[in-house]
Amino acid sequence: MIIDCHGHYTTAPQSLTDFRDAQIAALKDPAQTPSRASLKISDDQIRDSLENAQLKLQRERGSDLTVFSPRASTMAHHVGTEATSLEWSQISNDLIERVVGLYPKNFVGVCMLPQSPGASLEGSVRELERCAKMGFIGANLNPDPSGGNWTSRPLTDRFWYPIYEKLVELDMPAMVHVSSSCNANFHATGAHYINADTTAFMQFIQGDLFKDFPTLRLIIPHGGGAVPYHWGRYRGLAQDMKRPPLDTHVMKNVFFDTCVYHQPGIDLLLKVIPVENILFGSEMVGAVRGVDPTTGQYYDDTRRYIDNSALSAGDKQRIFEENAYRVYPRLKARLRQQ
Amino acid sequence: MIIDCHGHYTTAPQSLTDFRDAQIAALKDPAQTPSRASLKISDDQIRDSLENAQLKLQRERGSDLTVFSPRASTMAHHVGTEATSLEWSQISNDLIERVVGLYPKNFVGVCMLPQSPGASLEGSVRELERCAKMGFIGANLNPDPSGGNWTSRPLTDRFWYPIYEKLVELDMPAMVHVSSSCNANFHATGAHYINADTTAFMQFIQGDLFKDFPTLRLIIPHGGGAVPYHWGRYRGLAQDMKRPPLDTHVMKNVFFDTCVYHQPGIDLLLKVIPVENILFGSEMVGAVRGVDPTTGQYYDDTRRYIDNSALSAGDKQRIFEENAYRVYPRLKARLRQQ
Repeated sequence: MIIDCHGHYTTAPQSLTDFRDAQIAALKDPAQTPSRASLKISDDQIRDSLENAQLKLQRERGSDLTVFSPRASTMAHHVGTEATSLEWSQISNDLIERVVGLYPKNFVGVCMLPQSPGASLEGSVRELERCAKMGFIGANLNPDPSGGNWTSRPLTDRFWYPIYEKLVELDMPAMVHVSSSCNANFHATGAHYINADTTAFMQFIQGDLFKDFPTLRLIIPHGGGAVPYHWGRYRGLAQDMKRPPLDTHVMKNVFFDTCVYHQPGIDLLLKVIPVENILFGSEMVGAVRGVDPTTGQYYDDTRRYIDNSALSAGDKQRIFEENAYRVYPRLKARLRQQ
Repeated sequence: MIIDCHGHYTTAPQSLTDFRDAQIAALKDPAQTPSRASLKISDDQIRDSLENAQLKLQRERGSDLTVFSPRASTMAHHVGTEATSLEWSQISNDLIERVVGLYPKNFVGVCMLPQSPGASLEGSVRELERCAKMGFIGANLNPDPSGGNWTSRPLTDRFWYPIYEKLVELDMPAMVHVSSSCNANFHATGAHYINADTTAFMQFIQGDLFKDFPTLRLIIPHGGGAVPYHWGRYRGLAQDMKRPPLDTHVMKNVFFDTCVYHQPGIDLLLKVIPVENILFGSEMVGAVRGVDPTTGQYYDDTRRYIDNSALSAGDKQRIFEENAYRVYPRLKARLRQQ
C-alpha cells in the first residue's frame, strides 16, 4: 500500500469558493454575509471534483490512500477575524469529512485549524477535538497566521503549547504548513512555503520543544524546505550553539515529506535524512501541475523518484507506508474499520 | 588561483564594535554620540584580527584571494535612521579598504550599502560610487533592510532600479545578502539568510528584471538557499506561470556560491546548476565555525567538497577562479595593478 501523506482539496467545487468570496466580502459589508445553509454541494459535485483529478492521479501513479486536508493556500488565516477562520475551518473540514465518507479507501482526513493573528489557540484546540471525533488523523498547523508578515511567536514558544498538548493527548501529528502570502516579497508556493519549512526546523534547533513534548510528532512538508540541502549548516549550527545532536534533539519528532520535484533533490533527501524520518508525499494536485520536459513525467509524480532511487525495497516500503503508521497512529485504526 | 567570493570581516577589532554600540546608544541618548575620530584602529590591530583567522584559513585551505566585505550580520540596516546606516557603512567600508591596502594579494573589497527601511537608494548609489573609486569590485544588497519584517518591495520593483543602474554603469555585481534578524521567528544564519536567498530567486522568476537590466549580475549566496534542492519546483513553477525557461529568464544573470557545508549538498548544487553559474565561496570566518565530527574537517572548508566532487579539472577551475572574472570584471583590473 502506498500512502501519500500530503494532499489538499485544491479542486473543491466552485460553490465553496463562492461562499468564501461572500464571507470575505461580508467583512466590509455585513449585508453580504452568506448563510451556511446557502452553501450547497452535492455528493456528485464532490465526486466530479475528484474523479478527474486526485482519484485519476492515484490510479495512474499507483498510490492508494491520500492523507487529505483543505486547500492550504485558501486557509488564509490572515483574512478576517477569529470568527471568520472558525466558520471557514468548520466548513472546509466538514467537506473533507464528506470526501472521506464517499471514498473511505482513497482518503483520510487531516484538518485545518481556525487560527487567526493574535488569537489564542483555544478555538483550534476545540476544532481539533471535533475533527478527531469525525475520524481525522492529524492537523495542519500554520506557523505564520499573518500570511507572510511573521508576527506570531516561534513554534517553540509556550503560546503554542495548548495545541501541542491536545495533539499529544489525541495521538495526532501536525504538519507545519503556512497558507497564502499577503506579503508581496513572498510567492506562496515558491518562497513562503519553503521558507516556513526552513524556519520551523531552525526554531526546533534553537528551542527545547521536544523535551516538553517527547511524543509530539511534526511533519515539515516540501522535503523539509532547505534543510536537507543545508544539512551540514544545521548540524554545524546546532554544534556551535551547544545544542544536542540533531538526531536526539529534533529528529525523534520531526518528519519530512517527499514533495521535492526532481530526482537529484529526492536523492539528496534520501541520502542525508534517515529513512525513518521520511514520509511519502506528492502534494498533488498542488503547487506544480505541469510535465517536466526533461523527463516527460509530471514534476509532482514523486513516486517515480523514490522508485528510481537506490534505496532497498524495504526502505522504500517504510517511506511509502510503514512510517505513516508510526506518525499517524489513528490511521491504522481507521483502516481496520473498513 | 582560488578566489573565495564570500568572506566577511567577522573578526574586526573590538573598538569597531564599541563604536557601533555607542552609535546605537546615541539613538536614544544623543549625548553618547561617538565621534568618528574616537574610533582608532591601528594597522597592527587589523593584522592581528586577520592573521589567526581568515589569513590562516586561506593558507591552511589553499585559497588565494577572498572577496571581502563588512560583517553581514552587523550591517543591521534596521537599526536607527538612514544617517545611522550611512555613517556605519562608510566606517565599515573604509575598514575593508584598509584591509585590502594591507593585504592586496589576499583580499579585494565588496561594500555594504547604507540602506534603511523606507529610505530611497540614493545614499546607496553614492556610497557604491565612492567605494568603486576605492577599488571595490561589488556590493552587498540587502533585500530586507527591515531585518526580518520584510516591509520593502520585491527586488524586481522599480524602487530598486537606481542601484541596478549604477551597478550596471560601474560593471559591478551585487550579492543579495540580508543582515541580522529582529524577528524572533528567524534565526539569522539558520533561517533568515537561507529564506532571503530562496525568496530573491522566486522574485526573479516572477518579475522581468533582467529584461530591463540584461547585463546585471546578482549573486545569491549560501548555495542559492533552497533553490537547487527544489530545482524541479522552480522549473515547474516558471512553466506553470508561463515564464520563459530559467536558463534564459534568470540564469544569464544569477550566480550561486558554494557556501553549502556538506558533500551531498555540494554534489547536488554541482549536478543541477550549470557550472558557469557557480562561484567558489566559503563564508569563512562565518556562520558555522566548528569541525564536522563525521569528516574531521571544518564544515565551511568548502574547497574540499569541490575537490572531492566528480567535476572535471576544468570545471573546478571555472568555479574556483574563471567564473569570478566574468562576474566581477573589476577584479582582473585590480589584479593587474599588483
